[in-house]
Amino acid sequence: MVGKTWRIGVAGLGTVGGGLVKFLAERPDFAPAGDRTEIVAVCARSAKANRGFDVSAFRWFDDPVALAKDPDVEVFVELIGGAEGPAKAAVEAALALGKPVVTANKALIATHGAALAILAEAKGAPLLFEAAVMGGTPAVKMLREAMVGDDVKGVAGILNGTCNYILTEMEAASRPFAEVLREAQQLGYAEADPTTDVGGFDAAHKITILAALAFNKAPNFAAAEIEGIEQVELLDIKLARDLGYRIRLVASASIADGGVSVRVHPSLAPLGHPLAETKGSLNALFIEGTRIGRIFIQGPGAGEGPTAAAVAADIADIMTGAVRPVFQSPAAGLVPFSGVDAAHSVGKAYLRLLVKDEPGVIAAVSETLAEVGVSIESFLQKPVEDAGGVPIVLITHATPESSLTEAVGRIARLPVVLEQPRMLRIARI
Amino acid sequence: MVGKTWRIGVAGLGTVGGGLVKFLAERPDFAPAGDRTEIVAVCARSAKANRGFDVSAFRWFDDPVALAKDPDVEVFVELIGGAEGPAKAAVEAALALGKPVVTANKALIATHGAALAILAEAKGAPLLFEAAVMGGTPAVKMLREAMVGDDVKGVAGILNGTCNYILTEMEAASRPFAEVLREAQQLGYAEADPTTDVGGFDAAHKITILAALAFNKAPNFAAAEIEGIEQVELLDIKLARDLGYRIRLVASASIADGGVSVRVHPSLAPLGHPLAETKGSLNALFIEGTRIGRIFIQGPGAGEGPTAAAVAADIADIMTGAVRPVFQSPAAGLVPFSGVDAAHSVGKAYLRLLVKDEPGVIAAVSETLAEVGVSIESFLQKPVEDAGGVPIVLITHATPESSLTEAVGRIARLPVVLEQPRMLRIARI
Repeated sequence: MVGKTWRIGVAGLGTVGGGLVKFLAERPDFAPAGDRTEIVAVCARSAKANRGFDVSAFRWFDDPVALAKDPDVEVFVELIGGAEGPAKAAVEAALALGKPVVTANKALIATHGAALAILAEAKGAPLLFEAAVMGGTPAVKMLREAMVGDDVKGVAGILNGTCNYILTEMEAASRPFAEVLREAQQLGYAEADPTTDVGGFDAAHKITILAALAFNKAPNFAAAEIEGIEQVELLDIKLARDLGYRIRLVASASIADGGVSVRVHPSLAPLGHPLAETKGSLNALFIEGTRIGRIFIQGPGAGEGPTAAAVAADIADIMTGAVRPVFQSPAAGLVPFSGVDAAHSVGKAYLRLLVKDEPGVIAAVSETLAEVGVSIESFLQKPVEDAGGVPIVLITHATPESSLTEAVGRIARLPVVLEQPRMLRIARI
Repeated sequence: MVGKTWRIGVAGLGTVGGGLVKFLAERPDFAPAGDRTEIVAVCARSAKANRGFDVSAFRWFDDPVALAKDPDVEVFVELIGGAEGPAKAAVEAALALGKPVVTANKALIATHGAALAILAEAKGAPLLFEAAVMGGTPAVKMLREAMVGDDVKGVAGILNGTCNYILTEMEAASRPFAEVLREAQQLGYAEADPTTDVGGFDAAHKITILAALAFNKAPNFAAAEIEGIEQVELLDIKLARDLGYRIRLVASASIADGGVSVRVHPSLAPLGHPLAETKGSLNALFIEGTRIGRIFIQGPGAGEGPTAAAVAADIADIMTGAVRPVFQSPAAGLVPFSGVDAAHSVGKAYLRLLVKDEPGVIAAVSETLAEVGVSIESFLQKPVEDAGGVPIVLITHATPESSLTEAVGRIARLPVVLEQPRMLRIARI
C-alpha cells in the first residue's frame, strides 16, 4: 500500500497543466495511501513560454504521442484539448499500451468516449475525466460511483462558467451581450474565439458525458440539441426578471420517448431557484434519482486550482487499483443514446413580441395563440424607451414545442407584429 | 472483472436494512462491473416483524457477531446502530476476519472510527460508511476521494433532517417546538426518544466524521461542542425572520487555534443563503478548499431509498478492489483532533431580551454592551402581544464569544431586564 512512486507524463501546459505541475511539485505525497507522484515528462506547444515554473526539470517532448508511448511514463495526463488531432492520438497511444489516462478533455470524451472506453477496458487501463465536467466539483464521480445504487431519471444544470459569467454580468451591469463578452475576453474569462463557450458547445459536451454516465449509454454528442447565448438580449434579461425569472444557459438530459433528450438552451429559471441563484462563473447540477431523490451540487467549474485538483483526484483514484467500467457498465455493451424529436417536448415558454401601439393587438395575439392551443399563464406589457414599438411578453402554460413553433410562425406574420418574436424556454427544473 | 457473486450478510432490518434487502433483491446486478450480489444471511431483533419482505429466503441469525463471523458471509453490512454493544462487536468481528464492512452507523464511526480504521487497515479490509452522513448524498465520498487534491479549510452544513423538518415546520405553521415535535413523532419523522436528533448529537456524530475526513485526523466526538434545538422558540424564529435570517441547526468544522473547531448550534443563516433555503428534511453541506474554493451539496439526508442507495454504492466500491485508507491517510498515523476553546471563537450573535416598557431601557442595554466591547449591527424592537414585556432583539458585530457571554451575564442582571437573555449565533457561512 505504501511507497510506490507513480511516474506521470503531462501533455498540455496551459492553465490546468500548469496548475497540476505546480500542485504535484508542492505535494508529491498528496495521495492518501502513501504512494508518491513524480512528473517525469511534459509536452506543450512551446518549451519557451513563461509559465511560472521551470520545465527543464522534466524531459521535454514536442509530440504528445511520443510522450504517451515513452516507457518511463506510467500515467498519461492529457490536457491539450480538442476532440481530434494530437489529444486523441496520444490518449489512444497510452491506452493501447495499457497505461492509465487522466484527461480534462470534454470534447474528446463526448465525441469519442465510447471507442476510447472500449480500448481502455480491453487493455485494463483506467480512463478518468473528472476535470472534464464542472472542474473541481465532482459531478463525474457522483454519477459514476455514488449513484450506482439508484436509477437516474434526469440531470440538469449550469455547466459553462463563461456563459454564466456573461449572463450574470449583463444583468448586474445592465450591459449588452457583445460588450460583456468583449470585457470577459480582455479579462481572460472568455477565449479569443468564444464560439465553443457562448455557442453552447462546451456545455453540450459536458451534458453528453453526464447523460452517458447517468443513463448507462455511450455518449453521443451528435444527439444533443444546442443553442447558445449569443441571441440573449439585455431586454429579455430585464423582462424575464420582471416576470420573476432569470436567464441561464441550462444543459439537461432526461429519458424521454425511448431515447435521451440532451439539450442546451438559454432558459428561464425562477428567481430563488438554485439555478437562478448560481451566479458568476459557478457551475451547478441537479441529479434526480428514483430512490435518492434530488441531489444538488454547486461549485467552481473551471480555473487552475479546481481543475488541477480534479485531475489530481483522478490520479489518486488510479493509485487505489480500482477496476471500474469507464461509464456505467462495460463499454463493449453500451449503446449510444439516441436523441428525441424536440417537437414532442412539452414545456412552458417565454415569448417576447414587438407590436404596434394600437387597439386590438393583444386580442390578435391571444387569438392566434388560442388557434394553436397555446394558453397564457402570465402576461406583461411594459413601455420601453426607443424600442420602436411596444414590447409584450407572455409566459405560456406547458405546451408541445411543435405548437410553440407554429404559434411563433403565425404571430410573426400578424400585421401588428413588428419583428420576429423571441422565444425562450422556461427551464424544467 | 465479471461474474463473481458477492455474498452479503445484513445485520439490522429497520428502514435502511429493509430498503437494502428490497433493492438487492430487485437489482442483484446493480454494480457496474458485472459482478452480482446475494444476501445470504440476515439478523435483527425479531424474525417475525412484518417488513414487507420474506426473511425466510435468508439464513437467520439472532446474534450479529455470529452473522459477521459466518464463513458464508463475505461482506458484512451493519445497520443496527449505536456506538457500543452488538453493532461495534459485530463490526470488529468482521474486520478481524478481514471482511469488508459497510455501515450506516454514525455514532460508531464518530466514537470508535479511529480504532476500527486501524483494525480494518491492518487486515486489509475496506470499512465504508457513506450512508452514515447525509444519507444518499455522497458527502463522505466527496471528502475522502474528490478532495484529495485539495486542502480543506472548513465544512459547514445541515446534517440532521429531523431538526430541519421541525424548524421548517415551526416557521411555516407558526407552531411551537413541542407541538411540531409531537406531530413529527406521530408521522414517524422523529424517534420516540428524540434526544439524539433534537439534542444535536446526531449532527455532531456526522460533523465529527466529516471533520476527520476533511482535516486528515482521527475522529474525536468528545471534542465536539453541541447544542440542540430544544430551546429554539417560535418567537426567535419570527424575530430572526424580521431581521432577514432563518434559524438552522448548523454543524461546522474548521481549523482554528491549532485544533479543530467542531460545533453544532442553532444558528441564524441569512434569507436567500443556501442553508437558509434548505427546507424540510433536506441536508446540505459546504466544503471549502484552498484550491477548489467552495462546493455546495444538498440532498435527502435520510430515508429508506437514499440511505439504502448509499449502502449499495459502498458495496459497489468494495467490488472494484480499491485500496484506500479509511480516513484520509493510514489510520495508524492519525492523531485525534483536539477541540478549541469556544471562548476564543469570534462571530456575530443574535440577542433577544425581554425588557420593561419604560424610558432608558435601550440606553442601559447598549451601555452594558459597550462596556464589554460588543457593538451593535442591527436592532429591532417590536411589540409582541402577551409577551409580558417588550422584546428587543440585537444583532452584534463579530465579537469574541467570551465577550458575548460576559455581556449576556451583565444584561441579565440589569433591573429593567425581565428574563434571561436568549443568545443565538449568526452562522459563519
